[in-house]
Amino acid sequence: MTERIVLAYSGGLDTSVAIGWIADATGAEVIAVAVDVGQGGEDLDVIRQRALDCGAVEAYVADARDEFANEYCMPALKANALYHDKYPLVSALSRPVIVKHIVKAAREFGATTMAHGCTGKGNDQVRFEVGIASLAPELKCIAPVRDLALTRDKAIDYAERNNLPIVTTKKNPFSIDQNVWGRAVETGFLEDIWNAPTKDVYDYTDDPSFPPVPDEVIIRFERGIPVAIDGQSVTPLQAIVEMNRRAGAHGIGRIDIVEDRLVGIKSREIYEAPGAIALIEAHREMENVTLEREQARYKRVIGEKWTELVYDGMWSSPLKKSLDAFIESTQEYVTGEIRMVLHGGTAVVTGRRSDVGLYDFNLATYDEGDTFDQSAARGYIEIYGLAAKQAAAREARVLGL
Amino acid sequence: MTERIVLAYSGGLDTSVAIGWIADATGAEVIAVAVDVGQGGEDLDVIRQRALDCGAVEAYVADARDEFANEYCMPALKANALYHDKYPLVSALSRPVIVKHIVKAAREFGATTMAHGCTGKGNDQVRFEVGIASLAPELKCIAPVRDLALTRDKAIDYAERNNLPIVTTKKNPFSIDQNVWGRAVETGFLEDIWNAPTKDVYDYTDDPSFPPVPDEVIIRFERGIPVAIDGQSVTPLQAIVEMNRRAGAHGIGRIDIVEDRLVGIKSREIYEAPGAIALIEAHREMENVTLEREQARYKRVIGEKWTELVYDGMWSSPLKKSLDAFIESTQEYVTGEIRMVLHGGTAVVTGRRSDVGLYDFNLATYDEGDTFDQSAARGYIEIYGLAAKQAAAREARVLGL
Amino acid sequence: MTERIVLAYSGGLDTSVAIGWIADATGAEVIAVAVDVGQGGEDLDVIRQRALDCGAVEAYVADARDEFANEYCMPALKANALYHDKYPLVSALSRPVIVKHIVKAAREFGATTMAHGCTGKGNDQVRFEVGIASLAPELKCIAPVRDLALTRDKAIDYAERNNLPIVTTKKNPFSIDQNVWGRAVETGFLEDIWNAPTKDVYDYTDDPSFPPVPDEVIIRFERGIPVAIDGQSVTPLQAIVEMNRRAGAHGIGRIDIVEDRLVGIKSREIYEAPGAIALIEAHREMENVTLEREQARYKRVIGEKWTELVYDGMWSSPLKKSLDAFIESTQEYVTGEIRMVLHGGTAVVTGRRSDVGLYDFNLATYDEGDTFDQSAARGYIEIYGLAAKQAAAREARVLGL
Amino acid sequence: MTERIVLAYSGGLDTSVAIGWIADATGAEVIAVAVDVGQGGEDLDVIRQRALDCGAVEAYVADARDEFANEYCMPALKANALYHDKYPLVSALSRPVIVKHIVKAAREFGATTMAHGCTGKGNDQVRFEVGIASLAPELKCIAPVRDLALTRDKAIDYAERNNLPIVTTKKNPFSIDQNVWGRAVETGFLEDIWNAPTKDVYDYTDDPSFPPVPDEVIIRFERGIPVAIDGQSVTPLQAIVEMNRRAGAHGIGRIDIVEDRLVGIKSREIYEAPGAIALIEAHREMENVTLEREQARYKRVIGEKWTELVYDGMWSSPLKKSLDAFIESTQEYVTGEIRMVLHGGTAVVTGRRSDVGLYDFNLATYDEGDTFDQSAARGYIEIYGLAAKQAAAREARVLGL
Repeated sequence: MTERIVLAYSGGLDTSVAIGWIADATGAEVIAVAVDVGQGGEDLDVIRQRALDCGAVEAYVADARDEFANEYCMPALKANALYHDKYPLVSALSRPVIVKHIVKAAREFGATTMAHGCTGKGNDQVRFEVGIASLAPELKCIAPVRDLALTRDKAIDYAERNNLPIVTTKKNPFSIDQNVWGRAVETGFLEDIWNAPTKDVYDYTDDPSFPPVPDEVIIRFERGIPVAIDGQSVTPLQAIVEMNRRAGAHGIGRIDIVEDRLVGIKSREIYEAPGAIALIEAHREMENVTLEREQARYKRVIGEKWTELVYDGMWSSPLKKSLDAFIESTQEYVTGEIRMVLHGGTAVVTGRRSDVGLYDFNLATYDEGDTFDQSAARGYIEIYGLAAKQAAAREARVLGL
Repeated sequence: MTERIVLAYSGGLDTSVAIGWIADATGAEVIAVAVDVGQGGEDLDVIRQRALDCGAVEAYVADARDEFANEYCMPALKANALYHDKYPLVSALSRPVIVKHIVKAAREFGATTMAHGCTGKGNDQVRFEVGIASLAPELKCIAPVRDLALTRDKAIDYAERNNLPIVTTKKNPFSIDQNVWGRAVETGFLEDIWNAPTKDVYDYTDDPSFPPVPDEVIIRFERGIPVAIDGQSVTPLQAIVEMNRRAGAHGIGRIDIVEDRLVGIKSREIYEAPGAIALIEAHREMENVTLEREQARYKRVIGEKWTELVYDGMWSSPLKKSLDAFIESTQEYVTGEIRMVLHGGTAVVTGRRSDVGLYDFNLATYDEGDTFDQSAARGYIEIYGLAAKQAAAREARVLGL
Repeated sequence: MTERIVLAYSGGLDTSVAIGWIADATGAEVIAVAVDVGQGGEDLDVIRQRALDCGAVEAYVADARDEFANEYCMPALKANALYHDKYPLVSALSRPVIVKHIVKAAREFGATTMAHGCTGKGNDQVRFEVGIASLAPELKCIAPVRDLALTRDKAIDYAERNNLPIVTTKKNPFSIDQNVWGRAVETGFLEDIWNAPTKDVYDYTDDPSFPPVPDEVIIRFERGIPVAIDGQSVTPLQAIVEMNRRAGAHGIGRIDIVEDRLVGIKSREIYEAPGAIALIEAHREMENVTLEREQARYKRVIGEKWTELVYDGMWSSPLKKSLDAFIESTQEYVTGEIRMVLHGGTAVVTGRRSDVGLYDFNLATYDEGDTFDQSAARGYIEIYGLAAKQAAAREARVLGL
Repeated sequence: MTERIVLAYSGGLDTSVAIGWIADATGAEVIAVAVDVGQGGEDLDVIRQRALDCGAVEAYVADARDEFANEYCMPALKANALYHDKYPLVSALSRPVIVKHIVKAAREFGATTMAHGCTGKGNDQVRFEVGIASLAPELKCIAPVRDLALTRDKAIDYAERNNLPIVTTKKNPFSIDQNVWGRAVETGFLEDIWNAPTKDVYDYTDDPSFPPVPDEVIIRFERGIPVAIDGQSVTPLQAIVEMNRRAGAHGIGRIDIVEDRLVGIKSREIYEAPGAIALIEAHREMENVTLEREQARYKRVIGEKWTELVYDGMWSSPLKKSLDAFIESTQEYVTGEIRMVLHGGTAVVTGRRSDVGLYDFNLATYDEGDTFDQSAARGYIEIYGLAAKQAAAREARVLGL
């Protein structure tokens, strides 16, 4: 029986050519798998037809937008996941859901190998292959660009020779990946890290230098999840889409960093994630009001580890699951409302309220009605500082002070 | 011989009254200690004279601005210290340098007790008293507001009765603390956490909604310290002052959070720290270019701990010193230049360069000249994912997948 | 209506006197609460009667041995909880279960205050009072020894004057606390930390210098819990009791350390915990065989934090619950058998097996049948070491090597 | 000019054959590098001559025993480095010092490649090659066993065919690595993890079941380093050798674990490290007496990370250096004496004293002379538990308790 290979298919030039390229190189039948994670662009039916026209024996397409928002973006929001304090893991989050559908397709169509269009120097190859190993350890992986010498020039040449129904352009200024959680842009003149990004780099956000009038928004969270915007119930997907639109209009969520890839390279990346950044900003303040201090402090460390693991392609690893259990348990009371003003590149929280918050006006106020027992402070400070005090006394003794 | 008490003296109503109040309550002589940490306002000589006019037997004043910038703000910058991801520790940094001068004054003038103007429900009482315990464990501490029932109303009454040379106003809308690293505002109508701050809350920053034209700035770092701005050599103090001016003009560094105090209360705080926020933003990107990945990752955890410790008043603790040793060792190569655009509330890095950076164009590029060996990736991924793969295979086996 | 106070009652001199002492000092009615956590000694009915004879208006007794083993000792085992790498949290674990019954009794009998027999310089006062605050924030706390000047001499005097049915001895060489998880001994000549413990210090363990013949034991774990010993099904309580007996006969689990108390004091403590130490040793190796590497590594850090929190009296805190969620999720596959030899102070694992382990003979072996792909190693090492290599190359360049 | 390759040479069969095998396969000249790290066995001169007899063009030998003890074992002692809570990093510590000499030899003799005798599935290949990359990024690496198909059978055959002056034995029951810090044994029947180790596995330790009379030893530490044993000054090397002898006689430091290798395999390892284990036990208690609590707690986390990094071959990485800076700063006052009894498999601390310790009898004692202010405790507990109390009150409110 002929081997079958499932290919992570985007509909673009490289993976369209890969269908035939893999078949030629391996003799296997290729099944194209396209997953909608909110990247916009063409209709799934168009993409499915193109896959078949390019020689795929089957085409599996899935609208995974809600699944992606619910099961991938929301955990990232709960973790306040920002790699390098800035990057909300746009591509790192979409790979696992694509992997999940690839595995489903592989089992449905009896494939023994999966193929992806990544190069050999990025993070995504790792995310795909470790993801596959974690969900379907029996599947093999192949990457035509990395393993079968499928360069861009050869791809263009192949597409033209074989009349593939896909536009070929010699020059792509950037490499782009996008989904509903954000958009990543790299390569080209950005590889000179002293160069500032030009306006054409951006697509999800308008120029923050010329913003419309300030936009006030009220986001309601329940157990860490946005459930209403300005009083209107929303699904997680709708919350992200709506905040992309409104925060994007103000140029919020533009990110420009030099970043540490898993493979040991530093690379320069431009991201846009207006909805993600605005939601994380709101979620953080919702946590400030509702989490107990020590839980909040340790959650920062846990969230940082979660972020690194997911960036590093370990979405399905045992440790990631245990970190999820920690984070999930912290969200029980992350419920309430955040008022935010979006304007000119900034999403600024201006108010917060919660029926289950831990802010206690009567403890906090310096006005009458103060219920805090100030007389306890002396005893507290004496014992709180005792260990440090003894260490200080030792030092003074030793140094002869 | 009469007991002597050194008082942390600001020149304002409360501590001016405290001079006599303490003397009356304890029979001790009071020595006023005023330290300039860049809070602006009155001249030190004016403050010294007022202290004496209010009954202090001695007045010790110190211009500690450079000391504060060099030894307190710069370590915070190296740590990228942002409590709750936002607050650059403005007050938490100034307390230790004030404590240092209080101890110096106490030894100079033979005092056995120190006094401070803090209430019994804030962080600063802890910072003062644990700071004292860590530098001069033999000194006792007293807080007239907390321990000697010195309320605001009594202070006004006392000042008027005794004709103290200080303005008395019944109503102070806010409680304010400021220094060159930033400004903190609390209490008043801000205690209702749903209320947005009003314009009069701010002093270090202009309204970011109506910014001047974008301001491009190039900051040079050496070993983690800003040493030049736009080609002009600067001391740390000058760097902060200059960035306060330029970033402040764009409304950068306004912060509005509900924060976890050490004493177990959540409180609502407004901060302004234009220079600190702009410098930390620049420093972080300088680190992105120059720190090795694993060192950078772990430094985030260390920096978070450093920040919590300093917030919690443990500046002089043994653990803080060991964290300093870690952080200092990471800054060896944090050298280079950051280009930033300041505009409308945002400080955005647009370029970075370093002779000792770890960004390697030839490894990063997707163009010709790529020196990265992509063939290594397959082996890397196989072994990198092996442990997770085995765990996945077990799970599949157990679940009968 | 008369106030009611629930007293944590041990049946010993101090708390027997406390019944009347508290009543005298406060005018309240005292309800004695005695909880059996496996401390051995007198029957609960005897203790109940003594409480009533000493003046308690009610006596609440509870056999909490299984509850203590299941809900307090087992989580500690899953966490491999060893404070200072050695101390299995004996007293720190029993306080929360006692607190739970005190709260139950307080609600049953309408008490508004709880009382405990701790001094003002130990950990247990904090564990009791923070525990109460976390379960019944409306209850007040009082400690006769600390707050009502009930010294040992006064207690003896009071007991004799009032003919309380309790033995009074002027001299107690040690202060002892014990339960099924272990035994703690402090004070007396042990306060000179250069003194070695004498034989009379120990009660749960025989002298390891003269052990009986080696004792081989096989412990079966399921999801982290011991469920069978030598093929015999056991409850957690039975497992602890059995291992106390067998490991105790070999002098296993004697601990002698200088320890950091929460209140900032270092104190010298002797512990005996034969069962706890042997079970933790076995559990750790069960984890070595069944946990994925990264999960296991991070669990060490989490377990350390769990241990500190529980030691510090934060059993019921939000952070503790989130750490529990993490730890619980790691135990899913901690199932299998450990063979151990107990002899002369040591519990040594000599064999382990698990149907759900991650040890794979075919990957590990250097014999034929090896399934590990050694050719992957070169690629792995190249990329794994790339970031460190670039940092090294920079250093060489800068230093001119 | 002919290429030159430096080979990490042990004097045993595999690396003796490797000299010619590499030369044959690559045409390069081979320089043998043998480093004495206290592994015992043959004289360095004998090994040097054998290398030359086997075809090496040069032989570089170094007595690195003191260097190894001072610069590698002592940092591990300061870190209390125990991988998996048990393994004192025996092999992981020796690789970096061997690498250092290999680099020295490569530069002295103009080699461009290094070779080592490791397989492709262990940790040591990574430690060698990442170590080389970190010290001499220009050197290439080759592993004859892994890369040039040099199996054991082929090695024996080659040695016999070429009359190499080395004993060939078909059957080696175990794979062994040893140095002054300890000894590692693996493979053979130990690969069945249910098998107990047999007596012939051990060499550094006598059977703990039949110990000589208890041996009391007093170890003096200065800044974390053992400087005297029973009043006799010692170098670090002498301290290790002496404790190997004395603790070895009591069977101390036998370790039997399933361990997580860096390459994603679990393997079963037997170790013996009598001196290391006894010294770490003593050092930990020395720290208990001298480190401030919070510093001690965080040092545990740092030490765990240090241990993982060194195990993982990252000795020369930037993060390791920063962790060293932290650890070094904690050792300033780790000075004093530990009394220990060695007997039957256990090294038990029975006394400790220090002029710079933080144990304060007057604070700790329950006798007269107590200087602890118990009245401070109430205030302390109230504020210490306030955040947890508020969280509890919320929970009660929400759950309607």
